[in-house]
Amino acid sequence: MQIAILLFDNITILDAVGPYEVLSRIPDATVTWVSSSPGPKKAKGGLTLLADRRLGEVPAPQIVLIPGGSGVDGVMREPAVLEWIRNAHRTSLFTAAVCTGSLVLGAAGLLKGLKATTHWNHRDRLAAFGVDVAAARVVREGKIVTAAGVSAGIDMALCLVRWTAGDRVAQAIQLGIEYDPDPPFDSGSPEKAPPEVLEMARKTRR
Amino acid sequence: MQIAILLFDNITILDAVGPYEVLSRIPDATVTWVSSSPGPKKAKGGLTLLADRRLGEVPAPQIVLIPGGSGVDGVMREPAVLEWIRNAHRTSLFTAAVCTGSLVLGAAGLLKGLKATTHWNHRDRLAAFGVDVAAARVVREGKIVTAAGVSAGIDMALCLVRWTAGDRVAQAIQLGIEYDPDPPFDSGSPEKAPPEVLEMARKTRR
Repeated sequence: MQIAILLFDNITILDAVGPYEVLSRIPDATVTWVSSSPGPKKAKGGLTLLADRRLGEVPAPQIVLIPGGSGVDGVMREPAVLEWIRNAHRTSLFTAAVCTGSLVLGAAGLLKGLKATTHWNHRDRLAAFGVDVAAARVVREGKIVTAAGVSAGIDMALCLVRWTAGDRVAQAIQLGIEYDPDPPFDSGSPEKAPPEVLEMARKTRR
Repeated sequence: MQIAILLFDNITILDAVGPYEVLSRIPDATVTWVSSSPGPKKAKGGLTLLADRRLGEVPAPQIVLIPGGSGVDGVMREPAVLEWIRNAHRTSLFTAAVCTGSLVLGAAGLLKGLKATTHWNHRDRLAAFGVDVAAARVVREGKIVTAAGVSAGIDMALCLVRWTAGDRVAQAIQLGIEYDPDPPFDSGSPEKAPPEVLEMARKTRR
């Protein structure tokens, strides 16, 4: 199974690496990082990564994954990327997005009239694409799957493993990455965070 | 605040990127990826990354972070890396490891007689360094902090933010990465996983 993850400048890299760590552990899966232009890409925070292939070299992956980050503003204005997504979506098993990656699916015209999710601080932007925005962690509409902000990609990827390789493989991968979360606070959603924390986080809209 | 993350071939990249995504959001923090040799590094699964600096260029970061992965077997045999860790530890605020990164701290001689944790499938290897191995998600012994397998680095990093920048900043970062985990299964620890899943995961000791 070939999995393609879109890489671009100003990507929020955990959006991509959470699912990567999960999906690359599926037996017989290969993850390929694709980009629209050659050369190193800088994630938010400064980490430098290299894509494996240009978009055109990976026309028909089984899973397409679009991460988010402030770089999606540029990605949404690249017709070649949107065209690649639309084409790949025709034959994919799943077309997925994490965080503001769903805005790119929206810009590609794939989400119109569908239910989808995104980072809590960007729901209005997703709604502007004619999307029925859900305040959910993972939303599946047929073969389109979207996840909430950043870390939600890990939960989404485990669902993708479940749907493609079965429950046992998904559970073994969860155990392999020891995903038994225990955050020191319970402030991971706008509904749970204290008001002053919500205010702080809102200001850093990325 | 300068944070240094060790990069090497066959790193388990989520060990590093989970904490990176959290720590790089601390106001005024800079994360620098350091390596003992120049050139691109290949993570498990094939992702290619570039370090920012050589070890000697970052002698005294406030936070030192050692990720895990099968590549630690090589790292533990590199005297220059172990020496860099020992030196950096003298002046660090925190010296931290995720997953089998704790084996590197053990090889550097920093964990003798102390309580620490690691990936559940490698506890025997950590014990061999004279460590009191805890089946815990995050363990703090003074300024040495260790996390369990892979995804535990996210929880650990939120603790590091709490201890260096305070509760409110940590909570705002948790909200920023929408870390409100909701895995589709409850099999993230050896105590919780069904026996056949544990057996599957044990075989893929990395």
